[in-house]
Amino acid sequence: MAYEPRHMKWWGWGNEDAEFCPSGHPGFWPYAKEVLEIERDDFGRREWDLESIELPEAFVDEKFLAQLRSFLNPTQISDDRKERVIHAYGKGFRDLFRLRRGLAGGAPDLVVYPESERDVCLTLRAAVERDVAIIPFGGGSNISGCLERMETGRMAVSLDMRRMRRVLEVDLRSFTARIEAGVFGPDLEAQLNASGMTLGHFPDSFLHSTLGGWIATRSAGMQSDKYGKIEDMVVALRMVTPEGELATRTVPKSSNGIDIKHLCIGSEGTFGVITEATMRVHARPERRMVPGYLFPEFEAGIEAMRECVRQECMPAMVRLNDPDKTALSMAFRPPASGFSKVAGSLFKNYLRVKRFSLPRACLMLTAFEGGDAAVARQLKQVQGIYRKCGAVSLGASAGKSFEATKYDFPHIRDFLLDRDVTTDVSETATMWSNITPLYKDTMTVLRDVIEKSGVRPWTGCHISHTYQCGASVYFTFGFRQNQGSEMEQYLRVKRAVQQSFIDHGATLSHHHAVGTEHLPWLAAEISTLGVHTIAAIKRSLDPANIMNPGRMQPSQNPFEDWTSLVNRTRSVLGVHDLLAKRGAH
Amino acid sequence: MAYEPRHMKWWGWGNEDAEFCPSGHPGFWPYAKEVLEIERDDFGRREWDLESIELPEAFVDEKFLAQLRSFLNPTQISDDRKERVIHAYGKGFRDLFRLRRGLAGGAPDLVVYPESERDVCLTLRAAVERDVAIIPFGGGSNISGCLERMETGRMAVSLDMRRMRRVLEVDLRSFTARIEAGVFGPDLEAQLNASGMTLGHFPDSFLHSTLGGWIATRSAGMQSDKYGKIEDMVVALRMVTPEGELATRTVPKSSNGIDIKHLCIGSEGTFGVITEATMRVHARPERRMVPGYLFPEFEAGIEAMRECVRQECMPAMVRLNDPDKTALSMAFRPPASGFSKVAGSLFKNYLRVKRFSLPRACLMLTAFEGGDAAVARQLKQVQGIYRKCGAVSLGASAGKSFEATKYDFPHIRDFLLDRDVTTDVSETATMWSNITPLYKDTMTVLRDVIEKSGVRPWTGCHISHTYQCGASVYFTFGFRQNQGSEMEQYLRVKRAVQQSFIDHGATLSHHHAVGTEHLPWLAAEISTLGVHTIAAIKRSLDPANIMNPGRMQPSQNPFEDWTSLVNRTRSVLGVHDLLAKRGAH
Repeated sequence: MAYEPRHMKWWGWGNEDAEFCPSGHPGFWPYAKEVLEIERDDFGRREWDLESIELPEAFVDEKFLAQLRSFLNPTQISDDRKERVIHAYGKGFRDLFRLRRGLAGGAPDLVVYPESERDVCLTLRAAVERDVAIIPFGGGSNISGCLERMETGRMAVSLDMRRMRRVLEVDLRSFTARIEAGVFGPDLEAQLNASGMTLGHFPDSFLHSTLGGWIATRSAGMQSDKYGKIEDMVVALRMVTPEGELATRTVPKSSNGIDIKHLCIGSEGTFGVITEATMRVHARPERRMVPGYLFPEFEAGIEAMRECVRQECMPAMVRLNDPDKTALSMAFRPPASGFSKVAGSLFKNYLRVKRFSLPRACLMLTAFEGGDAAVARQLKQVQGIYRKCGAVSLGASAGKSFEATKYDFPHIRDFLLDRDVTTDVSETATMWSNITPLYKDTMTVLRDVIEKSGVRPWTGCHISHTYQCGASVYFTFGFRQNQGSEMEQYLRVKRAVQQSFIDHGATLSHHHAVGTEHLPWLAAEISTLGVHTIAAIKRSLDPANIMNPGRMQPSQNPFEDWTSLVNRTRSVLGVHDLLAKRGAH
Repeated sequence: MAYEPRHMKWWGWGNEDAEFCPSGHPGFWPYAKEVLEIERDDFGRREWDLESIELPEAFVDEKFLAQLRSFLNPTQISDDRKERVIHAYGKGFRDLFRLRRGLAGGAPDLVVYPESERDVCLTLRAAVERDVAIIPFGGGSNISGCLERMETGRMAVSLDMRRMRRVLEVDLRSFTARIEAGVFGPDLEAQLNASGMTLGHFPDSFLHSTLGGWIATRSAGMQSDKYGKIEDMVVALRMVTPEGELATRTVPKSSNGIDIKHLCIGSEGTFGVITEATMRVHARPERRMVPGYLFPEFEAGIEAMRECVRQECMPAMVRLNDPDKTALSMAFRPPASGFSKVAGSLFKNYLRVKRFSLPRACLMLTAFEGGDAAVARQLKQVQGIYRKCGAVSLGASAGKSFEATKYDFPHIRDFLLDRDVTTDVSETATMWSNITPLYKDTMTVLRDVIEKSGVRPWTGCHISHTYQCGASVYFTFGFRQNQGSEMEQYLRVKRAVQQSFIDHGATLSHHHAVGTEHLPWLAAEISTLGVHTIAAIKRSLDPANIMNPGRMQPSQNPFEDWTSLVNRTRSVLGVHDLLAKRGAH
């Protein structure tokens, strides 16, 4: 293959040569130290040694391997140590915490790189025959536990889709493109841009995630306000299952019974492998503007968003930070940005005249896209609404600063992990009428549970991904680790937040998938019968249960299993157990 | 119940006192006579005698009935002759053809009117216990064969949902309403209008169809261009199945695995009964305009629609008639309409100057809705596009004439059936790049197959329900009946059209459901594995197969069964067979 996207570093987010650079954001560490009550600086630089990883010996079924070799070339099969470690997990807190302590119990025995749908079909066929588990893998950016192996007793293969990366066909008359599922965000956009088109899907993970991953997890891009969530963009798709191929017609809409597409979208690798999709695409916008605004308080910003819904003029992106997230954004800004200049004393005086209370002020980042005239018109209308809600404009610079760093936020977590700080995110979506109660109560729950562990909480929230009836509510939190019980501390916090979502009628996740992290709440979310129905579909498409096993079906003791997951995968997956079990059959 | 929508007449469309009135459309019959080569007028008036219907004796399981009586009041249960005949079929050609010949083999044994979700649950529980088939019934307007009983051997009940008609809750902040599924279009709009809201869903069947029916069949309203298809409007729903209740959370979007909503939407009564849904609603628009336009030819109109997609300014409704459908619209116009005035000789001269060839001219009907300023702006932009494509404006009158008669078109079919003319519709959807080939080839197929039966075809088409990537293509056709082989003649035509859709990569139906009429093509549409997966879901939710049995699963000889359906249901469903079979157990 001429081009193949690189793997992320196994110990954190992004490529091995990319990391959070404190000098690029000089205000950040002082801010973090203050809000998290950190009193030292001597954390030093950690070195990550692949050899120190406790990696279970690979169990390889030789007959399966021989079959693979009959239709794959040698570069498509890898049992390399590093490859196995990279494919052991996604990038959730729990994932990185384990890897950084040398635990890679979730690692597959083998990594396979299909280059065509035929490769996928034949691999699945061989896997069924030899009872081998298959875990589809896109960019490996998932943070909800979709990627680790969940069982012992048989061989597990990570099916890494990145070589299936072609845009196969662009229909310029119908504004669609047929695309292989393994393509990464930047590669996809480059190919589409060559035809003057864009998908318009820019999740935070854009650099390190794939089309197939987006579809399998119901991803949302930053500009979902205009372009929709990924499920709104899929016109047709193909999914290879152990029982054959599910394929839907390339038609705009249909009345053909239940919509089979939706058996594939969100299936998180448990039914089959999404190999290609025909997606709605858009002409690249003539004009793009990214102005920022400051609202006097959070409620005023929410009201402004809702009014844009009412007037049908929502920008392509909106992201309203609460006061603490606003403070974090200020602290995160590059040293010489225009935004930092306007945020100087003159501007502060102006805000004082406007009766802004800075500790309550909320940053709203927006993006406008389209034809020149349409953008100008929409901007005027939106600004009129924002002004009525008390906002002041920060000009284009706030947005530009955000644009420049928008894919860098996940690096902060690694930086803080290096400094014994746990950070994570939990996001949901709810109706406009429920956003404020959900926000207030969840914040209380979150701060309480963190304080109970004896440390000071940092919590922030932003509202984004608006729809006519509601929006996503995205919580970020951080705290100093309880040394020796970091995971227990983390799980108590995570559980409290998720439970608050469910208690408040919100969803368990707006765009991060179920995986293992949200599994205990699945029945509360989609009803017990919903869970049973998924099991029935699974039995039908994957009777041998080879596809990403152990997911989508909460156990009898879901919370117990959820809490003990970190220990379970460490102890259970010894290769000797595996071999012994195989021998017995 | 204070209010209950009336049933439609059993022999045709609409209420018993409503029918097509030739004097209201003086040009229509002369036009029809000419294009269909009809040479007589002496068809007289048919009288429809309920007593002449050959209705199988009802088979009633007394234990089931006793159970029903324990939780329903007497007005909720009916074995009345007329009720059974009304619930025997929907309103497809095949349905009316049989009823008008006195055949009601599809009739249920009993009609039940639930008034609450509890009534539905208890009825399904009793039905499972006594092995009774349940056929959910909304307004009875379906034309794809979703409603007739398909099997013998056990009792069948039509579950008529019309008494579950309340808007339970309107969330004005979130623009949603929670609504019982049995509500009819006008009743629903009246209730929503009381809160200043509208659903924005106006299918041709609006007067005689229900929310639950729309959701179960994936209906589309005339203004789907703005408000979306019904599946785009559902925020959450509840479906009672024999195994319990499927319920989804009221959240704008989620990443909670596969979207369980889509196991209910389009399920056509085969998995359970949709009892309520939370729907997106909209403030009633300040302004509504319905201008009409004339395009020099069909292609120019299609190009104009596509350009509106590109410029993101599609009207709330667009409906582009091809030349023959345009001629029909002209013939259908009321005697003194403004449209008829402008279509006078002056206007014809104007068109000649504009180099319009009237036989090729195409009528485009549109609707614009929203705030005053937005409508004015959008109108200007759209008219600019239309003008560039050669269109001339017909002013507001063309649209007003359409608005006044838009729900009356189905009456024409009854009027023509009375005159030995078969008319029907077949509709599909396809990508913009495929509309012209599909249109041209399907027209050829359609005209050929009608001509082969020895009569002159009338065919027309309109394009409507636009999406970013394509639109619905809606064919209407009519021809003189071959006396004595009317059904065979009809089925040959219908089959040819549907086959053409599938051959051209289009969908088997855009908004009319699968039912029995489109069942033979289901595997071609959603893949064989898709059909098997639906069967698996069905086994899981309805293991005793009591819900609308005989649907969604094509038989081994789908076309043979499809062709013989009319005879099968007549001969098989004798009550004596039923009784004999029951006795044997």
